[in-house]
Amino acid sequence: MLEDKNQSKTSLAELGEFGLINHITKYFKVEHKSTVKAVGDDAAVLDASELQTLVTTDLLIEGVHFDLSYMPLKHLGYKAVMVNLSDVYAMNGKAEQITVSIAVSNRFPLEAIEELYAGIQLACDTYKVDLVGGDTTSSTKGMLISVTAIGKADKEDIVYRSGAKETDLIVVSGDLGAAYLGLQVLEREKQVFKVDPNNQPDLDNYTYLIERQLKPEARKDISGLLKELEVKPTSMIDISDGLSSELFHICTQSKVGCKIYEDKLPLDPQVISTCEEFELDSTMVALSGGEDYELLFTVPISDFDKVKANPNFSIIGHITAENQGLQLITRANQEIELKAQGWNGLKNN
Amino acid sequence: MLEDKNQSKTSLAELGEFGLINHITKYFKVEHKSTVKAVGDDAAVLDASELQTLVTTDLLIEGVHFDLSYMPLKHLGYKAVMVNLSDVYAMNGKAEQITVSIAVSNRFPLEAIEELYAGIQLACDTYKVDLVGGDTTSSTKGMLISVTAIGKADKEDIVYRSGAKETDLIVVSGDLGAAYLGLQVLEREKQVFKVDPNNQPDLDNYTYLIERQLKPEARKDISGLLKELEVKPTSMIDISDGLSSELFHICTQSKVGCKIYEDKLPLDPQVISTCEEFELDSTMVALSGGEDYELLFTVPISDFDKVKANPNFSIIGHITAENQGLQLITRANQEIELKAQGWNGLKNN
Repeated sequence: MLEDKNQSKTSLAELGEFGLINHITKYFKVEHKSTVKAVGDDAAVLDASELQTLVTTDLLIEGVHFDLSYMPLKHLGYKAVMVNLSDVYAMNGKAEQITVSIAVSNRFPLEAIEELYAGIQLACDTYKVDLVGGDTTSSTKGMLISVTAIGKADKEDIVYRSGAKETDLIVVSGDLGAAYLGLQVLEREKQVFKVDPNNQPDLDNYTYLIERQLKPEARKDISGLLKELEVKPTSMIDISDGLSSELFHICTQSKVGCKIYEDKLPLDPQVISTCEEFELDSTMVALSGGEDYELLFTVPISDFDKVKANPNFSIIGHITAENQGLQLITRANQEIELKAQGWNGLKNN
Repeated sequence: MLEDKNQSKTSLAELGEFGLINHITKYFKVEHKSTVKAVGDDAAVLDASELQTLVTTDLLIEGVHFDLSYMPLKHLGYKAVMVNLSDVYAMNGKAEQITVSIAVSNRFPLEAIEELYAGIQLACDTYKVDLVGGDTTSSTKGMLISVTAIGKADKEDIVYRSGAKETDLIVVSGDLGAAYLGLQVLEREKQVFKVDPNNQPDLDNYTYLIERQLKPEARKDISGLLKELEVKPTSMIDISDGLSSELFHICTQSKVGCKIYEDKLPLDPQVISTCEEFELDSTMVALSGGEDYELLFTVPISDFDKVKANPNFSIIGHITAENQGLQLITRANQEIELKAQGWNGLKNN
């Protein structure tokens, strides 16, 4: 689409940096009282009153984190925001502001940037987040997006990675592995397209997987759900690099071990059928897939009754003593040591 | 230096993302009570108590904002922090935290990243700022750094761009144009080096200029100086894109015009001599050079006596009615309309 020479496009150089900033920020509205001043000064001004402020940042780079040959720019903008909001929700906080910095090479016309910001704006509207700053510049190659999300929380409500205790239950929201499989499907279609550009892919069997990859949703709802259930997690993290990797973070920081059960891992039927088709082990996919943006948390065992029947949650195991290590109990009742095999931006490239 | 094959280097892939994060953050200490939790969870936790929070972000890209053939990595790390702190000081706030995200291609060994973070750490130590988060990833080409700075200020102390009033005096800290000329000198030496790599440049006449380009210092001191003088600026901005461009921001947002005087522009003797050598107009350099990271502010005319004799400040003109536009009064007493000719990352590439 970006290469379509028949449409008239506006070059970014024509507009200039300040022109571009004005252009892309004029449709963003301020939602929060805590946003005293958003875009337009040297810094944004925020007022968290008596609450604590949460800050998190993530960098997405073309060719490393996304491939524009199957990632529409609007989805990319949306996802770049989700990735960051997810981190604020993983602290049990409310996300209220973001800053967005982008760098683009001159192969992108203004219309491409508008698409990207349409996705960012949709995310801001849907999740009630204010855009309060950023930077736009040129790059010598490709596109990159750096988002910082700012949230707040009552000191008492914040959940760190370090609070898991022996016997705590390990819980995940939603299901696992779909985003990773969505990426495999999209990569396969890209290869097919290279060979035969006229081939029309039938993606009906993969809609959920592809949506999870291209339009992930951060779990803004979990904090409220847990409050309703009167459950305060002892530790929490979002699943961006894969379940194994996140369990390692929680266990390391909490100085505990864990035992999780293969038959308890929540898998969507499309994940199971697509794993069969791709000859992949669905357990490996759930453990190491990444990009699910679900929440992984631990709760005291006394909260078992509050959590067990909730359709949003799956209890997948429990916390053990540190010297027990991290273990997966297979369907055949074998103990396997877990390895942190999450997505690693530095190793994969 | 990065290409020296005789030294043993540690590849980033070997270390992995989490290894790298641990490696580069372990020497950073937390200075501020407001930093409740720095690196190591989904988000940093900050506590601004009853103050307001300032957030600003900047993106520096190799080949666009810096050239590693003459910018040492340690200086680059330092400068990336300065650029952001400068924005917090321009709000009359105290900078207390930063997040740093970097992307590097595999041409950089660990030792290069260590150099970069040594500069970031020096900046953090010198300016008393806590590193509280970030992201590290690979890039398909070159290096980029995205820094977000967080500060705080009493609501009453914050100075926006929008408060300048007719008759206010226009003041700048320090001197102008040196950083731009430093870049010209370094670019010239790079060309000389390409022709004759054995040529030893004599840079004695340009030390101040080169230091201003490679190791700028953000004006943390100005806020305190003004408080001592019992002066509260009516508007303030930092000079990153050039004086003209910043005057445009203040005048547009304050809905005023301005008159500045050519003979009042503060120039270092090295700026004057090097402008002669390069056959550049020193006024143009001061107006459009950029990267000075000085502060430009306006004060009520009643504060004239407090500001006039201070060696840190130069009164360069005054605010006029909006319909007067932005004017430069030359040494020959001619009126010239100012144009925003600041550095533009999107146009220059």
